[in-house]
Amino acid sequence: MAIIESIPNVSEGRRLDVVEQLAAAVRAVPGARLLDYSSDATHNRSVFTLAGEAGPLKAAILALFERAVASIDLRTHQGAHPRLGAVDVVPFVPIDGVTMAECVALATEVAAIVAKRFDLPVYLYEEASRDPARRSLEDIRRGGFEGLAGKMAAPGWQPDYGPVSPHPSAGATVIGARLPLIAYNINLQTDRLEVARAVAAAVRYSSGGLRYVKAMGLAIEDRGIVQVSMNLTNYEQTPIYRVFDLVQREAARYGVAVLESEIIGLVPAAALTAVAAYHLQIARFGTDRILENRLRDA
Amino acid sequence: MAIIESIPNVSEGRRLDVVEQLAAAVRAVPGARLLDYSSDATHNRSVFTLAGEAGPLKAAILALFERAVASIDLRTHQGAHPRLGAVDVVPFVPIDGVTMAECVALATEVAAIVAKRFDLPVYLYEEASRDPARRSLEDIRRGGFEGLAGKMAAPGWQPDYGPVSPHPSAGATVIGARLPLIAYNINLQTDRLEVARAVAAAVRYSSGGLRYVKAMGLAIEDRGIVQVSMNLTNYEQTPIYRVFDLVQREAARYGVAVLESEIIGLVPAAALTAVAAYHLQIARFGTDRILENRLRDA
Repeated sequence: MAIIESIPNVSEGRRLDVVEQLAAAVRAVPGARLLDYSSDATHNRSVFTLAGEAGPLKAAILALFERAVASIDLRTHQGAHPRLGAVDVVPFVPIDGVTMAECVALATEVAAIVAKRFDLPVYLYEEASRDPARRSLEDIRRGGFEGLAGKMAAPGWQPDYGPVSPHPSAGATVIGARLPLIAYNINLQTDRLEVARAVAAAVRYSSGGLRYVKAMGLAIEDRGIVQVSMNLTNYEQTPIYRVFDLVQREAARYGVAVLESEIIGLVPAAALTAVAAYHLQIARFGTDRILENRLRDA
Repeated sequence: MAIIESIPNVSEGRRLDVVEQLAAAVRAVPGARLLDYSSDATHNRSVFTLAGEAGPLKAAILALFERAVASIDLRTHQGAHPRLGAVDVVPFVPIDGVTMAECVALATEVAAIVAKRFDLPVYLYEEASRDPARRSLEDIRRGGFEGLAGKMAAPGWQPDYGPVSPHPSAGATVIGARLPLIAYNINLQTDRLEVARAVAAAVRYSSGGLRYVKAMGLAIEDRGIVQVSMNLTNYEQTPIYRVFDLVQREAARYGVAVLESEIIGLVPAAALTAVAAYHLQIARFGTDRILENRLRDA
């Protein structure tokens, strides 16, 4: 069975009745499984984790759009997280028995339907992008909903599907395909924000660090500590243990220790068993040694 | 679905045609899955890993006994590994949605059938044992097939089921229930056997070490190294990372480093993700964070 994951991010994290309606819309689709969902009031944003085969997953995403476009109005939406639209971003991720090319095809198909059905501009991103200059979500989202009309009128920013002006209430949406991403934070035993920022700068790709790491330093004020908040975009080529060790090493130069780390959302088992294999120095380790994998494949 | 694992150990590791016949007998049972099997010529022994619900698993184990009792004669069997019978030991292990008590009930039922159908003495062990003095496999197996007739005549060693004298060719069999066991070896960067033995003595329960560790030191002569060969009998209470760290520390006092470690057979994913959570200092880690677990349970 081909399992694809999709993690739609929706611009509503305060009206929990609306979030529940969105969850219900997804759950009502046979064959699509809602694995997880969580809301953040500061960000005013919710993240849904869905899995299934291409057909049911497509139906579930369309049901989510239907409900979100009807319930969310970006003109009154406020929140700390950058966003362009009611359904802000929809990635499709290959999990089991499916290629990236198939996920790109699914993203493209969903983008075309969404644009037509809801009269909504859609940008394709990451593996589904058709333009290297607008492959990254950050670049597409820069300027936010408030800057969207101006951005769409600028050269090179016509959407891949749909009208060349924002949907009045739902803005625009970004749909694409990517590898599994791990949201991974490391908390440092200090309240010195400059340390978190320096460590983030040292480990992230954009300023010379590890290739598949995005990172920023931020304060967790109610706990009196700071955090290196990261996205790991390819845990096979930039494994978690290397990221952890480097953060630990960089923090140590400021006399700061790692307090703890945390995984946000879900993590593929292989990303963690690789950490075990590294620290235990397991020779010739393969995931075929794991009982559950044999059970699944037998 | 209730998943039970069974890992029958059979006293044949050289005549691979016989091993294939045993595998075929198990595979022919609908609903029983043969996850893994491997043979060791030095030990003259094969280990099969089966999984399924109680009914199919019982049928597969009985099919294995049928074939093994017909094909294996302990009177001519030689090998490095201690053994009592053609089918030497059959543990049942709870994996998912099943209690230890249910595995004990299954072990007892299979023991009664095997004794009657093959006229074979059966000892119950570990969680299925009815006598604290003969709970451990080592104690039951001490003396081997060659000493079996004498042992069975001694007070306290009457089998739990079957005749009070060995089966002429198939000896006796040991059936029981236990937690998942991890066969885990750590290779040391030295050829000094006394170091492996000292480290094994330091970490194993029987000489004052960690509660759920069995260990011995042995030489791997063709590689010019030594090995601490272990069974971890409860990875929840004595986790792998603690065992690894202790072996590393104890070896260091002799100036010896860990070369590598190896897992023999299959390992539950939770045993490895616990290692990752430890080394990454993950706060509030639960296996419900793992994508595959959500997929399975959704």
